[in-house]
Amino acid sequence: MSRFAHDTAVRAVGDGIYEAAIDGGWSVIAGAAPNGGYVMATAARAMAHAGGQPDPLSVTCHYLAPCTPGPVRIETEVIKAGRRHATVAASITQGSRSMAQLLGVFADLEAATGPSVDQRRVSPLPPIDDCIDGLSDRAPDPAAMSEVPPIFQRFEHRTAPGVMEWARGAPTGEGAVGGHLRWADGAPMDTFGLLVVADCYPPAVFNLQGLTPGWAPTIELTVQVRARPAPGWLSAWFTTASVTGGYLEEDGEVRDSTGQLVALSRQLALVPREAGG
Amino acid sequence: MSRFAHDTAVRAVGDGIYEAAIDGGWSVIAGAAPNGGYVMATAARAMAHAGGQPDPLSVTCHYLAPCTPGPVRIETEVIKAGRRHATVAASITQGSRSMAQLLGVFADLEAATGPSVDQRRVSPLPPIDDCIDGLSDRAPDPAAMSEVPPIFQRFEHRTAPGVMEWARGAPTGEGAVGGHLRWADGAPMDTFGLLVVADCYPPAVFNLQGLTPGWAPTIELTVQVRARPAPGWLSAWFTTASVTGGYLEEDGEVRDSTGQLVALSRQLALVPREAGG
Repeated sequence: MSRFAHDTAVRAVGDGIYEAAIDGGWSVIAGAAPNGGYVMATAARAMAHAGGQPDPLSVTCHYLAPCTPGPVRIETEVIKAGRRHATVAASITQGSRSMAQLLGVFADLEAATGPSVDQRRVSPLPPIDDCIDGLSDRAPDPAAMSEVPPIFQRFEHRTAPGVMEWARGAPTGEGAVGGHLRWADGAPMDTFGLLVVADCYPPAVFNLQGLTPGWAPTIELTVQVRARPAPGWLSAWFTTASVTGGYLEEDGEVRDSTGQLVALSRQLALVPREAGG
Repeated sequence: MSRFAHDTAVRAVGDGIYEAAIDGGWSVIAGAAPNGGYVMATAARAMAHAGGQPDPLSVTCHYLAPCTPGPVRIETEVIKAGRRHATVAASITQGSRSMAQLLGVFADLEAATGPSVDQRRVSPLPPIDDCIDGLSDRAPDPAAMSEVPPIFQRFEHRTAPGVMEWARGAPTGEGAVGGHLRWADGAPMDTFGLLVVADCYPPAVFNLQGLTPGWAPTIELTVQVRARPAPGWLSAWFTTASVTGGYLEEDGEVRDSTGQLVALSRQLALVPREAGG
């Protein structure tokens, strides 16, 4: 079983209620809050099971408080289960505390038929051979490897040159980040994994001049999963084009190794704390 | 009271439950299903009231069945009410039938502070003086005025030239539609009205070659409201860039008369029935 499948496994304990364990290996800072996409993916597994459909189609998660590693309870409610789509609500609690609330629709993307058109502007992500092996073009200090955020270690990364230089005080000036990636353990990517991919890079806003990197809490994340990914590298590109009154969106686009669009994401987040109001 | 305020009024009947009346004047086809943005706006009024915040900040609505004009019941659940944000779930029912399920976060956008940055690509919408008065550059047949969809009559429109020619068999070939608009009755635009604006144009997919116009049912609509709009005309631009296996996204961007971004929307819809699988 892959690391991702293991760490997002849910156990039905009856009446639409599931138990899962949030693993500390998906945090942005070791020992701190788990990645929002990972939390969404775990809940989505329960929601898909409850709704009787294999794939997330569009999932929205509102983050109320950062989960801590350890057991969570996921309560699902099937709002409507049609032939083609199942709409499911869910809440994640730890003890008596609400950590996240979700609403999503699930389907069988293998059975999706109908026309396909792609007029999407090609992202400026360079081809994989022109990208950086890892997240940075600087050789990591072996002594600092323990500081690599756990979630980055879950993927093998080929990163667009320059987009991580904000970490050394040199943001690109454009709100964009992205690269090519796949699971570090070689597992195939499924439609639940795409929910993590949609939230696995440092915030694109870190590349905007004048905004200090810091915790940029996600208020709400919505991911549309559009197809099951073909085997191989994914490419992902994230942009923040508008910051308004301390709020920002981050839009993501994920393609598979054949160039097919597999996910679109958008989140609403607060600007990094150091810079925010 | 403006037409919009009247037609989206909700009445608290206790314990988080509200009553409202869906008005037939917001349908896309007279006598048929009301516009999804209008349904969202009505529910959002109840959700904002329940959460004790004046503005929708991000609202997601999953459409389960088309409402019919007449009374609806809106049941709200305040998931979390913090100082700055209130997260609220809601369901809309008619009789015993679930028509829509919502999840949103509400705030006071007047109090929003923090940095603002705008790197968004300027939409190709021409200035208002270069747009068409109304939705079409053909003089309407007075006998056909009753066929103008009710929702179009709620707005005064100045429309980008050519984007409505799909109605005469001449789609532009690019999945885009938009124009300048304001309430027909001169009412000021509020943050709830933006939820309607985010869904008030014919689907951008109608301009894609080879896809026959028809009912393109919205599965899910998420609107981020980013600011209270300044008085005057709004400009709105909607694009569908990717159709995959019969599903499509429609992304919208709404600015106020000062050019400020006031809303971002994204919906997941099915391709028009005649063309879909």
